[in-house]
Amino acid sequence: MLRISTPEQFRKRPRPGIPKAVFAQARLIVEDVRSRGFAAVADYSRQLDGISVTERNLKLSRADIRSARKKLAPKQIRAMDEALERVGLVQSEIAKTALAETRVRVKDGFVLFRPRPVCRVGIYVPGGLAPLPSSLLMAGVTARAAGVKDLLVCTPPQKSGISAAIPYVARQLGITELYRIGGAQAVSAMAYGLPGVMEKADMICGPGNTYVAAAKQLVAAEGAVKIDLVAGPSEVMILADNTANPVYLAADLLAQAEHGPDSAAILLTDCESLAREVAERLERLSRRLKKRETANASLQRHGAIVLTRNMGEAAAIADEYAPEHVEIFAENAEKLVSMLQNTGAIFVNTCEAFADYGMSGGNHILPTGGTARFLSGLAVYDFLARTYVEAMTGREQKAVAGLAAAFADMEGLEAHTNAARQRGGTNS
Amino acid sequence: MLRISTPEQFRKRPRPGIPKAVFAQARLIVEDVRSRGFAAVADYSRQLDGISVTERNLKLSRADIRSARKKLAPKQIRAMDEALERVGLVQSEIAKTALAETRVRVKDGFVLFRPRPVCRVGIYVPGGLAPLPSSLLMAGVTARAAGVKDLLVCTPPQKSGISAAIPYVARQLGITELYRIGGAQAVSAMAYGLPGVMEKADMICGPGNTYVAAAKQLVAAEGAVKIDLVAGPSEVMILADNTANPVYLAADLLAQAEHGPDSAAILLTDCESLAREVAERLERLSRRLKKRETANASLQRHGAIVLTRNMGEAAAIADEYAPEHVEIFAENAEKLVSMLQNTGAIFVNTCEAFADYGMSGGNHILPTGGTARFLSGLAVYDFLARTYVEAMTGREQKAVAGLAAAFADMEGLEAHTNAARQRGGTNS
Repeated sequence: MLRISTPEQFRKRPRPGIPKAVFAQARLIVEDVRSRGFAAVADYSRQLDGISVTERNLKLSRADIRSARKKLAPKQIRAMDEALERVGLVQSEIAKTALAETRVRVKDGFVLFRPRPVCRVGIYVPGGLAPLPSSLLMAGVTARAAGVKDLLVCTPPQKSGISAAIPYVARQLGITELYRIGGAQAVSAMAYGLPGVMEKADMICGPGNTYVAAAKQLVAAEGAVKIDLVAGPSEVMILADNTANPVYLAADLLAQAEHGPDSAAILLTDCESLAREVAERLERLSRRLKKRETANASLQRHGAIVLTRNMGEAAAIADEYAPEHVEIFAENAEKLVSMLQNTGAIFVNTCEAFADYGMSGGNHILPTGGTARFLSGLAVYDFLARTYVEAMTGREQKAVAGLAAAFADMEGLEAHTNAARQRGGTNS
Repeated sequence: MLRISTPEQFRKRPRPGIPKAVFAQARLIVEDVRSRGFAAVADYSRQLDGISVTERNLKLSRADIRSARKKLAPKQIRAMDEALERVGLVQSEIAKTALAETRVRVKDGFVLFRPRPVCRVGIYVPGGLAPLPSSLLMAGVTARAAGVKDLLVCTPPQKSGISAAIPYVARQLGITELYRIGGAQAVSAMAYGLPGVMEKADMICGPGNTYVAAAKQLVAAEGAVKIDLVAGPSEVMILADNTANPVYLAADLLAQAEHGPDSAAILLTDCESLAREVAERLERLSRRLKKRETANASLQRHGAIVLTRNMGEAAAIADEYAPEHVEIFAENAEKLVSMLQNTGAIFVNTCEAFADYGMSGGNHILPTGGTARFLSGLAVYDFLARTYVEAMTGREQKAVAGLAAAFADMEGLEAHTNAARQRGGTNS
């Protein structure tokens, strides 16, 4: 059973990172695919996925994509369509602000700061034990709301075939390029292209296992592409006072724990009786779970129930930890929301699982591992780049030439001084 | 003299990247400083900068910062103040949009997407052969406009002392933490902190040499901090037709070339006589330059004059190359601006050097090496993170519980199905 700990005990616990060996392995795969192209992809696919792919069947056919709908139950289709609508609504509203230009008069000149969508985006969709059409939905809807025209998908090949939900969502998003490539090899293919088979992308997004995460970081560090964020193990911190329903808390903690052994499910409460009841319920609930081993490993390693002096302390611990998700079930929820800065998403009296499936409207691709201190959940902003367009009248250039030359001189840049002086009408 | 080449010849030329050996060396320094703290910083400072620093004198005193002004000429002060004002004007205008919240009703729930400035930002300011107070100004003004409260500066120690312009600009920005640390060791110190000496930052920005650039990428890949962008060698592409003034073009190309031997100064024109005249003027102008060896190395290795069939082709080549800066001196400048997407900044009939010193109002920290395809020039946006705040009424949660459960079921997540079902009032 999950022990109840003090804030001091909790603060000492280490958080999981990507092991160095994973980086090393991912680097080998990335470089091999970069230099050998499709041949390397085929090798890793055989070796890691146990599947033979050919240049011809690497990409799903139009018929494969079109026919996916038939393999789905009406309720599954309704669930995906509802999520597409709700997430789309939020992102198109965000787009109104994110796509706004800024125009500024600067004395006798002007600056235009002009946003534009990234041209070509690759979306990685995990497809191993748990195919994640929801991740494709989150990334794809957001990219489309930003105006990205060219989208492609990579998802690991499966012996049983790609889960129909993935091509279904792709089709709803108007995506026609869907490749059966997984892992670090997919990331390399998207970053550098596969000559004759797949064109390189400008940006890669979507969650994946540690190899995918490591590979994304490597190709971004090379300056080859932009990546969305570092998607590590999922985390929830639940802030609950004595008004919270322990049945909900136990269910939500377990939902987090089933993601994987490195996931972190943490309850912060100032109510000891609630802490005890949740611990007991969690224990009972987890016994009935098929994936109980995964969930128990997660709870043992990274789970916690922390008894705080008051709810303000709970909020302070959460802000310091900077978790991916925060759920708040408390009387003064609004005050707690205002105290939280460093977190990907906050759910007020709302089950976080609804966000995983687009029902609450937000994006489920969120920063983990404490990176919420400086990174944001996926949104239209991530798919934009911006260009400064600047112009000054001849008179204005003449007026500032002396000051710019003085500045350039201070930095020891003689040719800059000269270029500025030319505009001032003084050949130095 | 710079040869005139065809678009085909130009397209084949490789672009400089960060050598692997630099990454390896930067990694050693980053890890050493991370584990040994100040002692390692002191070692590298002695070894690489030839200067002994102590825990006491690592940080500039208040008196050092306050007295900097006295060492500057009135014209230098006016130049910096003018730049602070102009760049501040543009960033505060950008902030109005960037800091806007998005609130969306999603059926019987709502989503708030709330921006917040990153808490603590470290700015790297090059200080070797060319101290760059302008870089501090660009990063600092932008961070302040975003609302960043906690700013610190690292700049390499100098035998002759830190250039007075750096503490002057720091003071104008209200920065009191200024450390004499350079290179990869400064990046590591900012990313991980120096126990007892310096607190870690959440974000690192500002340009530097290849060791600084490599170190920034390494600490960002570790998930320790956010970085602004990959600041590689500077680049300009000038698009000019027969109406352009060759005197200006030669001066601007040379100003770019003096930055360093890896800088790229490229002229794209459809006018052969202009191409020839610029090549000749550039030759003559460079002979008078003190740094002519650097400039000539840059022009030989990465410089080019490309003769295009028409100005549309020139714009297409620029869009493909995705340079840091584009200057346009042409009759149909507006049309060319509209054809350019992938570039950091565009200057219309305007000398780029004015932007280096804040006179045109834009930011001079811009994406290089082709990363303008997906990255933007520094702006308020870079210093913000955003949080999704989501809430649904109990009725709404009940209404969507079945759909969310169906979706969770499709992804094989049993505890998610259960958490959703609980809200629907059906204990599964």
